[in-house]
Amino acid sequence: MGRIICCGLGPGDPDLMSVRADREIRAATHVAYFRKRGRPGQARCIVDGMLAPTVSEYPMEYPVTTELAFDSPEYISVLTEFYDACADRLERLARETDVVVLCEGDPFFYGSFMHMWRRLSDDFPVEVVPGVTGMSGCWTRANLPITWGNDTLAVLPGTLDEGRLIERLRLTDAAVIMKVGRNLGKVRRAVEAAGLLSRAVYVERGTMHDERIVPLADCCQSTGPYFGMVLIPGEGRRL
Amino acid sequence: MGRIICCGLGPGDPDLMSVRADREIRAATHVAYFRKRGRPGQARCIVDGMLAPTVSEYPMEYPVTTELAFDSPEYISVLTEFYDACADRLERLARETDVVVLCEGDPFFYGSFMHMWRRLSDDFPVEVVPGVTGMSGCWTRANLPITWGNDTLAVLPGTLDEGRLIERLRLTDAAVIMKVGRNLGKVRRAVEAAGLLSRAVYVERGTMHDERIVPLADCCQSTGPYFGMVLIPGEGRRL
Repeated sequence: MGRIICCGLGPGDPDLMSVRADREIRAATHVAYFRKRGRPGQARCIVDGMLAPTVSEYPMEYPVTTELAFDSPEYISVLTEFYDACADRLERLARETDVVVLCEGDPFFYGSFMHMWRRLSDDFPVEVVPGVTGMSGCWTRANLPITWGNDTLAVLPGTLDEGRLIERLRLTDAAVIMKVGRNLGKVRRAVEAAGLLSRAVYVERGTMHDERIVPLADCCQSTGPYFGMVLIPGEGRRL
Repeated sequence: MGRIICCGLGPGDPDLMSVRADREIRAATHVAYFRKRGRPGQARCIVDGMLAPTVSEYPMEYPVTTELAFDSPEYISVLTEFYDACADRLERLARETDVVVLCEGDPFFYGSFMHMWRRLSDDFPVEVVPGVTGMSGCWTRANLPITWGNDTLAVLPGTLDEGRLIERLRLTDAAVIMKVGRNLGKVRRAVEAAGLLSRAVYVERGTMHDERIVPLADCCQSTGPYFGMVLIPGEGRRL
């Protein structure tokens, strides 16, 4: 009987994964990860060069990504069946041996692995190794200490509607808007309406070789990659 | 001319620091860290056993911690002078050699090092290595995936007044209340008033050997350690 060990990989630079994740991944005999069909997968790319030559790999390929609306019954049913099948497969495998599941960022912070954890952890030993979040990687690379003193921080998905984004931004000291992607135009309007445009920075692929960091005010495109985020640092007490 | 490299140490378990932080700390010839006077210091404890035998250590000891009110002019003036002196000392040292500054958690997320960074980074090469935040360590250990689907997350200091805490808790899907310490009683009342007591978990010293994890509803003490936190996981879409 093995274990399922989910390793947070951090924001992208392999040097930022934890000592424990590094050790588990290098020693792994069986490695599983989610990816978009037809792509190498971001998680798999981060560990490139770290896996043992004899490792067995189990890519779990999303049957759909953006072809169906996220809230359509079809999307929900296709994804639920997919996650059920992945969990069954992981469990069968882990009855024989340890399995390391790779997860970008920190697994319990918007991680896909949570859908596996929910299905498996009641009956099965599931260990999670936390990681540096994508947002920590981004605010470090952007040279933006995010919260000072008693600042509050709001983490908001870019999918919120414009009015709600403005309302939440007005109530917080610091903010991170995640999952900007095709919501970039709306996010920029909301940040501007909340009076925060001059402090906001847009970051794509932070800590990776092709990262891009620009003031949101200079960012006129209406769409960007899914993992793009907007950072608004707090202005709490400087001593 | 050396560099100042601030290494985020993560939540406490040394196995959770990044591969890069681990490497920088083991290779360091000069190491600096903040601590309370008369204590070994939490950051220094985390790296125990990792430092080279010949390392030079520069503890930076807070002249006061809780003896003065945080918002009193005396506190502000004493702390400002202290940070000025620490920055001068780091800069003089780093003109000769590399200096590694230790910082618990993630340096740009409520980190004391930000007060050094603000004074030094304009004129001096300052590098920051992000770390796993204390909150990531706590929600992982508490077995609480914190944000699902499009959940919003509010990070709130326990120092907020009770009315404001309630207001912010009512508006968010998931929450982390930091710096609970002597505010534990007030925080518990606010969480209950916001209707979230049944979902809330209190964590002290998460990932450390003496960690303590209890439902907030079972936690009747009115004060705890400064680094205690309350976690309220989101209830976003499970697929």
